[in-house]
Amino acid sequence: MKKVALFGAGRIGCIHAGNLAALPGVELVAVSDPVAASAAALAKTHGARVDSIEAIFADASIDAVVIGSPTTTHSDLISRAAMAGKHIFCEKPVDLSAERAEQCAALVAKAGVACMIGFQRRFDPTFNEARTRIDRGEIGNPEMLVITSRDPGAPPVEYIKQSGGIFRDMLIHDFDVFRWILCGDGDEAAWISANGSCLTDPAIAAAGDFDCTAVTIKTKKGRLCQINTTRRAAYGYDQRFEVIGSKGMLQCGNHRPSEVTQADGNGTRIDNPEAFFLQRYAAAYRLEIEHFFAQLQSGGSFRTTIADGVKAQRLADAAAASASSGQPVVF
Amino acid sequence: MKKVALFGAGRIGCIHAGNLAALPGVELVAVSDPVAASAAALAKTHGARVDSIEAIFADASIDAVVIGSPTTTHSDLISRAAMAGKHIFCEKPVDLSAERAEQCAALVAKAGVACMIGFQRRFDPTFNEARTRIDRGEIGNPEMLVITSRDPGAPPVEYIKQSGGIFRDMLIHDFDVFRWILCGDGDEAAWISANGSCLTDPAIAAAGDFDCTAVTIKTKKGRLCQINTTRRAAYGYDQRFEVIGSKGMLQCGNHRPSEVTQADGNGTRIDNPEAFFLQRYAAAYRLEIEHFFAQLQSGGSFRTTIADGVKAQRLADAAAASASSGQPVVF
Amino acid sequence: MKKVALFGAGRIGCIHAGNLAALPGVELVAVSDPVAASAAALAKTHGARVDSIEAIFADASIDAVVIGSPTTTHSDLISRAAMAGKHIFCEKPVDLSAERAEQCAALVAKAGVACMIGFQRRFDPTFNEARTRIDRGEIGNPEMLVITSRDPGAPPVEYIKQSGGIFRDMLIHDFDVFRWILCGDGDEAAWISANGSCLTDPAIAAAGDFDCTAVTIKTKKGRLCQINTTRRAAYGYDQRFEVIGSKGMLQCGNHRPSEVTQADGNGTRIDNPEAFFLQRYAAAYRLEIEHFFAQLQSGGSFRTTIADGVKAQRLADAAAASASSGQPVVF
Amino acid sequence: MKKVALFGAGRIGCIHAGNLAALPGVELVAVSDPVAASAAALAKTHGARVDSIEAIFADASIDAVVIGSPTTTHSDLISRAAMAGKHIFCEKPVDLSAERAEQCAALVAKAGVACMIGFQRRFDPTFNEARTRIDRGEIGNPEMLVITSRDPGAPPVEYIKQSGGIFRDMLIHDFDVFRWILCGDGDEAAWISANGSCLTDPAIAAAGDFDCTAVTIKTKKGRLCQINTTRRAAYGYDQRFEVIGSKGMLQCGNHRPSEVTQADGNGTRIDNPEAFFLQRYAAAYRLEIEHFFAQLQSGGSFRTTIADGVKAQRLADAAAASASSGQPVVF
Repeated sequence: MKKVALFGAGRIGCIHAGNLAALPGVELVAVSDPVAASAAALAKTHGARVDSIEAIFADASIDAVVIGSPTTTHSDLISRAAMAGKHIFCEKPVDLSAERAEQCAALVAKAGVACMIGFQRRFDPTFNEARTRIDRGEIGNPEMLVITSRDPGAPPVEYIKQSGGIFRDMLIHDFDVFRWILCGDGDEAAWISANGSCLTDPAIAAAGDFDCTAVTIKTKKGRLCQINTTRRAAYGYDQRFEVIGSKGMLQCGNHRPSEVTQADGNGTRIDNPEAFFLQRYAAAYRLEIEHFFAQLQSGGSFRTTIADGVKAQRLADAAAASASSGQPVVF
Repeated sequence: MKKVALFGAGRIGCIHAGNLAALPGVELVAVSDPVAASAAALAKTHGARVDSIEAIFADASIDAVVIGSPTTTHSDLISRAAMAGKHIFCEKPVDLSAERAEQCAALVAKAGVACMIGFQRRFDPTFNEARTRIDRGEIGNPEMLVITSRDPGAPPVEYIKQSGGIFRDMLIHDFDVFRWILCGDGDEAAWISANGSCLTDPAIAAAGDFDCTAVTIKTKKGRLCQINTTRRAAYGYDQRFEVIGSKGMLQCGNHRPSEVTQADGNGTRIDNPEAFFLQRYAAAYRLEIEHFFAQLQSGGSFRTTIADGVKAQRLADAAAASASSGQPVVF
Repeated sequence: MKKVALFGAGRIGCIHAGNLAALPGVELVAVSDPVAASAAALAKTHGARVDSIEAIFADASIDAVVIGSPTTTHSDLISRAAMAGKHIFCEKPVDLSAERAEQCAALVAKAGVACMIGFQRRFDPTFNEARTRIDRGEIGNPEMLVITSRDPGAPPVEYIKQSGGIFRDMLIHDFDVFRWILCGDGDEAAWISANGSCLTDPAIAAAGDFDCTAVTIKTKKGRLCQINTTRRAAYGYDQRFEVIGSKGMLQCGNHRPSEVTQADGNGTRIDNPEAFFLQRYAAAYRLEIEHFFAQLQSGGSFRTTIADGVKAQRLADAAAASASSGQPVVF
Repeated sequence: MKKVALFGAGRIGCIHAGNLAALPGVELVAVSDPVAASAAALAKTHGARVDSIEAIFADASIDAVVIGSPTTTHSDLISRAAMAGKHIFCEKPVDLSAERAEQCAALVAKAGVACMIGFQRRFDPTFNEARTRIDRGEIGNPEMLVITSRDPGAPPVEYIKQSGGIFRDMLIHDFDVFRWILCGDGDEAAWISANGSCLTDPAIAAAGDFDCTAVTIKTKKGRLCQINTTRRAAYGYDQRFEVIGSKGMLQCGNHRPSEVTQADGNGTRIDNPEAFFLQRYAAAYRLEIEHFFAQLQSGGSFRTTIADGVKAQRLADAAAASASSGQPVVF
């Protein structure tokens, strides 16, 4: 039985706690959150104790930690967990500063613990099926990737102000998808150009951020990737990509709440996509935690690592720089 | 905390046990199965005890039973559970004899216990969404229903021989869907005509059964329903219906393992439907058990009752008689 | 250059005239219609003359006639055309009386002229593609057929009164599709059961007709076909079928005016099907006339013949009898 | 009756000739092509004469010319037609040199003749339906556009060498779509970045061209457009775009030869898109010629003009320059 502590009893913390509770061989023993009531409620639901950060790291019986606390706490908690010899599952990003993220990665490597970053899209059944088919050679050599990544609405401007900007906050997932899908053979980005606009809310512009972006990446092997993003898609959370290879194409479509088609005088209508990430990636959240403990158990390799976190962060930084300067960044 | 005993540790018993284990406020305390090893394994997984039928009914602390044992045991277990004052969730059918099913229903009524029959399709997210929209009046008065119900392959002939025939074994779900979708206002079947063929395997014909059937039902209010069925659809488990109303139509499509579309020189391809009922109705199995305990808790009405089980059985009997005689049955 | 005369300058006559005009090697020389103004206008558009029935049959230079006049005139015009030695393309049905239709067929056979009946669905690109794939063995042995045939609205009751009823007026196309798709190897209907309701307009019931029907046919080889029909589908003209074979299934979907998908707060929406038969079967009308003259030219066999017209009529008669008696008809 | 001469009896010339022949009120009187046999054959099919360029421009009875000859002849023929006072329909591009194209435009303006450029995508029923809905305000303010433009295979390298490169040869249509869809209110490109690779055939690289490209455009109003292109899509000719507005999204999908869905052990399969531009844009070719003569007749404005041709050319030039330098071009 692996004993696990959870940092963060907010929205994503509750998701992870529920998934941990359902995993055979895993026991959630402690929850830590500065909001005492949240920690207490979540701990009670799953029969865990509330504990302090210090006590958790001092408890030698705890094998692993799941970090679902705010971004600003990630690098500190990863570092301390690594030094305490605990395996780590941490939400993205490692840190808004790529330098600090790299320092974390070095610490983790030195400590010899596992550190998986929560790029949950790699565990989405549809996206992962595409990856599997690419691995099987079904589309030949992957050549181009088009990622559509649209949120149903912008977060509060207060959140945006401390988010690191749309490239670090929202597109970091897309940069990871780019690397996962198009760079499976060790390829990496060679050239990136980004541009952005603020079309949906002037307050976002006032906060120095964009709400619509267009990114192009060219890899060392000449592959091309385009990412289109908006904070506000009127029809919901739109998460798709298509990858074109020498022998064929794979399109990953949205998931929908039901498969009902309704036809009447107004047209023929299907459901909009799942409302937002908690719905769309519900299975992915479950599967990533399963994977983390399965690999811990088997000693197998992890689908995402802290190195992936650092690399996505570097791409986000480059995109932000490009959008700011109007010039591409060459690696 | 509701204490529950489970009869049957086979395929469907394991599904129910897993869903019971995940339900807050419900505790699986006992498992009974004549195959001792199966009972022991399942009980161990969920921290329950293995017990005999007699002991279970004698245990006053048990609130409810879930019956997932073979069809031949259903009516007996329902009757005994009712007499023991335990609430009942039972897989379809109540009994292959509609008369015995009615006697069970009478016993249940007399005992004042709840008895829900596992017509899981009523809990499928897609099918239930259609029902909800009909209730909201979105398609006006429902007038016609076309049900497509196709299995990916026939069960062993030995199973078929004791199954009661395709109408009682396979179409009973479709008869329940017909009543649920088209007869929501108290309407009922007035006329039924069925025909069948054996096209896929002569051994099925030799066992006196059909593998393809075509049923038409007309209701008292003049609504029309057609059901097409085959035991062997080369592309998998096909579970759809469409309902036409005065203001529009609802089509319920299949669920698919992923939303990947693959295009190459051979065409543009999506996944086949979920493989079989355990996959397609995974959510439905979970939701029906949730509903059962939620209604027990709240005192609300149940989406299916033993009366629905009896009525579906009566339709199955009539269909079998019609297919045998070549003449319609008028109620 | 084949010289052609056209009977009927109404809606369908205009369609045929336009298609004739675009055909190389074919010249529309004469138009006949009791409504002089219609005949004159259509003749003028295509540089043809207006002429009487008698003069057309007396004109030895005319090779073929296209009959698009009202149903009641079909058998008379076919008979006279056959006796005049002219090849015949005639709209369905041959005659509302199957006996008269058979007499026509005998006359045609005796005269040795070609007589093709306008079952245009056999020329629809989608439907014909399905037929081609069945012929190539792509789904193995066809076993079941489900036909969905729904009009966007009922014709005037005055039309319905003299139409021969829904089975002869509307479903005759579906009976032909049944024979074309499921009986390609010489199989024929052995058993038919039909039922109907009047749910959309009491005036149709008062005229002695149905507006919703459900038909089941079993063939000599045990294949099953179900046809569901309504006069009033709120979302338009719905023309689909699906055929299940031993190795796979073919679904023929509707055609839509555009391939635009629109997504917003109200859902994700595609176009409704093409509005009605003139739109949906525009290509089919063109292709059937092309086929007629191509086969006349090459001496090849015709995709539909007057024998097909008679057989569809016999099925319509049987369906009407079954719906009236409540009993199946066995052939 | 408008009298028309056609330059070019090749593939696209034959399409235009057929469409002209079917247009009421229009007469194709002369065909000119340096390949005498092609000119003769096409002229014969449509009852026109073969004639020289000089004779055509000298024939005062000719109202309009349709130019479907090779690109290198376009600007010369447009100029001469303008000076001869004849209305002009010309295939894209006006000229591979934007300067020469502008000189042509000036000549056309001075002559006061109509000059429509064959950006046929503006007449595609699906694409045009999207434009119409944007005009109706159905998606609010258009904010982003993603264009997918993929050919089924590269043309011969000899063609590529004199094509002006992929941006001028292939993407010019996409640049026009960008302006048509995203700049309907007078907006124009402000910033363009392009990159390309050669992944499918080294001979294309040797010819100094790309076979895969990724373009991003930002408009003066901050709208974003991304275009992804490849010369070789294994599944055929892929022509789609989606436009995101403040209130919703429109997706324009491919057209397919039939609406057959086939399901078997290999998956559920629909047709690949129409094979190539002659099939996909068959209706568009017909409708653009209809539009040209309808507007000549009515005096209404033309959906495309030579100014659109020049502007698309300027974008192609900028894209080529950007892809060559690795830097964006700012207007």
